[in-house]
Order: sequence, then structure tokens, then C-alpha cells
Amino acid sequence: MEKIAVIGGGSWATALVKILSENKSQVHWWMRNRDDVQHLIQYKHNPRYLSGVGFDLNYVKPTNDIEAAVAVADWVILAVPAAFVQQVISLLPDNSFKGKVLVSAIKGMIPGENILISDYLERHCIVPNTHQLIIAGPCHAEEVALEKQSYLTIGSHDLETAERFCELLRNRYVKANPLDDLDGIEYSAVIKNIIALACGIAHGLNYGDNFQSVLVSNAMLEIERFLHRIMPMHRSLSGSAYLGDLLVTAYSQFSRNRTFGNMIGRGYSAKSAQMEMNMVAEGYYAVQSIYELNKTFQLDMPITTAVYNILYERISPAVEFEILKNKLK
Amino acid sequence: MEKIAVIGGGSWATALVKILSENKSQVHWWMRNRDDVQHLIQYKHNPRYLSGVGFDLNYVKPTNDIEAAVAVADWVILAVPAAFVQQVISLLPDNSFKGKVLVSAIKGMIPGENILISDYLERHCIVPNTHQLIIAGPCHAEEVALEKQSYLTIGSHDLETAERFCELLRNRYVKANPLDDLDGIEYSAVIKNIIALACGIAHGLNYGDNFQSVLVSNAMLEIERFLHRIMPMHRSLSGSAYLGDLLVTAYSQFSRNRTFGNMIGRGYSAKSAQMEMNMVAEGYYAVQSIYELNKTFQLDMPITTAVYNILYERISPAVEFEILKNKLK
Repeated sequence: MEKIAVIGGGSWATALVKILSENKSQVHWWMRNRDDVQHLIQYKHNPRYLSGVGFDLNYVKPTNDIEAAVAVADWVILAVPAAFVQQVISLLPDNSFKGKVLVSAIKGMIPGENILISDYLERHCIVPNTHQLIIAGPCHAEEVALEKQSYLTIGSHDLETAERFCELLRNRYVKANPLDDLDGIEYSAVIKNIIALACGIAHGLNYGDNFQSVLVSNAMLEIERFLHRIMPMHRSLSGSAYLGDLLVTAYSQFSRNRTFGNMIGRGYSAKSAQMEMNMVAEGYYAVQSIYELNKTFQLDMPITTAVYNILYERISPAVEFEILKNKLK
Repeated sequence: MEKIAVIGGGSWATALVKILSENKSQVHWWMRNRDDVQHLIQYKHNPRYLSGVGFDLNYVKPTNDIEAAVAVADWVILAVPAAFVQQVISLLPDNSFKGKVLVSAIKGMIPGENILISDYLERHCIVPNTHQLIIAGPCHAEEVALEKQSYLTIGSHDLETAERFCELLRNRYVKANPLDDLDGIEYSAVIKNIIALACGIAHGLNYGDNFQSVLVSNAMLEIERFLHRIMPMHRSLSGSAYLGDLLVTAYSQFSRNRTFGNMIGRGYSAKSAQMEMNMVAEGYYAVQSIYELNKTFQLDMPITTAVYNILYERISPAVEFEILKNKLK
């Protein structure tokens, strides 16, 4: 029986615990909140996210003890918001990950440092990059809960490890495929949240389907330019892990980044939109990191620039999108 | 003043007449139905499509006389369903298009002959390919009627002619760009209708957003393979004319092909779905042409094959999508 630690209690963590435990892996599920752990043990449901999903406690071991959860596991899945990664890692003694495979289910960058989660983990957790994986979509947790057919891509520098992890995920409604582009998938996943935010803003400003399709097409070109500059290699960007992941975020009602953007487009401030949603929109932080990185690269990234200007320079969404629409084609 | 003949009375023709006439071109608008022409002259609205749009009869000249409309024009825009092209062309004397630019606003192929509209027109209308243009999306006519920001791509072998036509289209809410890939855009536009149909079927079968995003990603790879085989050149398939056009069709509520597919997925027969919708779904014919063409090429086109099998081999959508889902990744 594979032993897996899942770190985090959000909706994506919950979906992963469902998939892994149903496949009879032993999942040591850490979440910060003591009441939530008690609730899980007592009622077999996560009280906060995907609460319709029931868990078999023969396979799922909820815990508040992160050190113990990691110690016992062969695989450690990090599924906390990017902004909390440093804090969570600091709870663990050095060398906690020795010999383990570290799997990132996080789509974001370390705020302020503008580095990928995988780069941060490589440095701070002393994990060789062959022992690192990233779980990429396109996959909304909400649809996993409903057991709708979904596809995951596991990015890695080591396809054999990625394939072993895929085997832990595959089931009746989940297909998983390994791909040797860990960094490319990760950057793409970060930028797609910015694009989803832009789609939300466009919707909030009453732009229609015609505009959104052009926005997403131009976004793919923007992602292509960025990946080509930061990590050149031959990629099929139309693949599920890139385009698919962008589409599921940009078009879906389940997307928080889109919802957040929509509120911005309708006139909410970033702060009040966040309070109203009571959720973190990763794109809010991602746009700052990508914008900062691009100060060095000076690539043509009109969508990222527009979202940055709206959120951080407080330029009116309507004004900024008037400028943006002339740059798209 | 530019003189333009628009052949066809559907929603896309109506949107184009709106754009062109507002830019003060003289538009000779042919439609078959005498009552519709009379209605237009009397009430300045098309009674059947986009009937909220009013026309200025100083610029719009509705007519039943196709020969006169074409004779007077410098540009002739064909905007009838693909299945009616041969019939419409047969109404005109030979050499009607001499010296004129022929613009196709049709997304389809000649049924039975499996050739592109542009190839058919080149052969039967004796128009050199430098005098041919194609209008590609991503653009729903319904959003043009609402004056929502839209983008058009004008495909041509002659960028100068394409640019001149773009100038006739550009306005406050329409941007137009020339692109030197007439055939690629046209094939892509044909296949996208098949994909939209597949998206509709998936929706009708209760597949979710996760699946659709993978379906569309795989579709882009399918389009890429096909274009590379039939018309190899360097293309940025993420551009608006390819990916954008696919997205606006695959994701929008305005898409007939998607709606048609949805009914097929829910169990309607092709015939009853068409009767219910009272509209032609171009994808229904397109899939037969592309499937037939691919018999020679033998390319891996699982989505086209699935849609063909459902519509023409009467295989159950549920069964066919069970097979398809295993081919996607």
C-alpha cells in the first residue's frame, strides 16, 4: 500500500484525497484546523470544501501533525495556496523529504520572490529535481467530486517517477499522463490564472464571446513567448496541460480567478472582491510575479500588463481594456 | 463609394451588411425570398435574422435580382450555406465575376465533392486566387448586432487586396486583419464546426468542463495534423483565426453546431434535431467531407471519426464517446 501525505484542506486537496484513497492508497491528510480534522474523523466529510464527498477512514487518516504525516509517507503532495508554502515548509524539520517524492499541486509562485514553487522546494527542501512532480489540470476539483471524466498531466524531469504517480491516480473517471516539462507546465499554470482573471474582467465590462475567444487566443501567444524565453524546448502548446488547463480556468463557472476578475470588471476593488469571495484568487499574486519577471525579459505581454495595471496601479478596468483591445488581433 | 454585393439573407450576411453599410459602402443585398426583400425595403429590418438591426436604405439596396447585384459590384460576398453555393452560382451567367473580388463568408465544403468553397469558386467562377478572400472569425453575428467588440481575419493569397477589404470592415467595434493562409483558415473553419458539434454531444451526454477543455485541446492537435498534411506552412495555430474561431464556436451559446450536437447527445436523431432547430448545422456536412478526405490521408483524427460514426453510422453517442475518451489525453 502506497503511503501518501496530502498537505492542505482546500478543494483541490480534497479531490486528490478522494482519488488516491479510492484507489486504496493510505492517505495521511494534514490540515491546519483542528476542528476540521475532528469533523472529518467524526463525519467522514471535509466541512469546508466538496463537502458532499465521503471518505473511507480505512484509507484516509486526517491529522494535525504535519511532521508525522510527512515522516510516514513515500509521496508528499503539497496542496496549499502559493502564499502559504513557506509557512507550511517551516513547520517541518530539515531533511523531512529525504528519499521521498515531492508533488506540487500548487499553481502559483512564491510571492515577493518571483520563483516557481518547484524551484523553491528544490532549494529549501533539498529534493533533487528527479524527485519532484507537478500535478497539472485541466481539472476542476468540483467535477472530480461529481466523478466527471477528467484528465491530469504529471510534469516531471523523470518520466518513470511521473508514470508511477499516474498509476496511483488513474480510475474510472480520471486519466493521467506523464510529461517531461515540469517548468513549462508550472509557468503555464501560473499565467493561465492571470488570463482567467482577464476573462473575468472582460465579462464584468460586458465584452462578449467574440472578444473572449480573441483574448484567449492572444493569451496562448503570450504564454508561448514567455515559455520560449524562460525555458526553450519543443512543446505542443495545444496539449491539455497548457491550452486545456487555460480553457478550463478561463471558461468555467467554477474558476475563482474568473469570478474574481468579473468582480473587478464590475467595479469592486481587489480588497473588497477578495473579502466578498472569501477565497484566494491565485492570479492576483501571479500577475505581480510574472510582471516583475518580465521587467527583465521585456516581452510583449499585453494581457499580463493590463491585469497588473488594473490590480496594482489602480487604473480603471474600462480604460485599460480600451488600450488592450487595440493590441489584440 | 465602394460597391459590394452580399449574396444571402442569413444572420452572418445580415451582420456583414450592417458593418459595411454603416461604413458607407453601397451594399446590394440579394436574398432569394421576395417577401423578405419587400419587408426590408418597407421596414428596414431583416424579418428573419438579427431583426433588431435597422438598415439605412441610402446604403443598403435589397434585391431579388442576383445578376444585377453582382454586375454593379466591385466586391461580391457569398454568405449562403455551403450546400447552396452551387445552386446560387448557377443563377449567374459565366464570367459574372470578371475583374471583381470574390469574398467567401462560408464555412464549409461542397457536399459530395469534398472540396473547399474557395477551390470550387476558383474553378467555376473563373476568379484568380489573388482575387479571392475568405472572412474568418472568431465572430458571432449575434454579437455584431449588439456591437460587441469583435475581430475578423481576412484570408487571402494577396495581402494587399485583403488589407483593402479590411478597411471596409473596420469600425468602432470591429477590428480586421489580413492573413496569408486562405486554405488553412478555411479548413480550420470547417473542422471547428465538427469540434463544436462534438462539444455539444459531450454536453448532451453530461460530460463536464474538464472533459470539454481536453476535447478542445485534442481538437487543436487534430486540426494541426490535418493542416500540416494538406497545406504545410508555418502557422501560429493559437491565433484568432484558428484557435479563436474554434473557441467562439465550441464554447458559445450562440453556436448552432454546438446546439445541434447537444441534441444528438441527448438522444435526438440527426433528422429530428435539424427539424427542431430549423437551421442548418454546417458541421453535419463538414464531418462527412473531412472524414472522406481523411480516408486517403489516414491521419489520427479521433474526434472527427467519432462524430462521423455517430451521425452517419448511427452508433450511439454514449458508446462512441466511451471509445473517444480513451483516445484523448
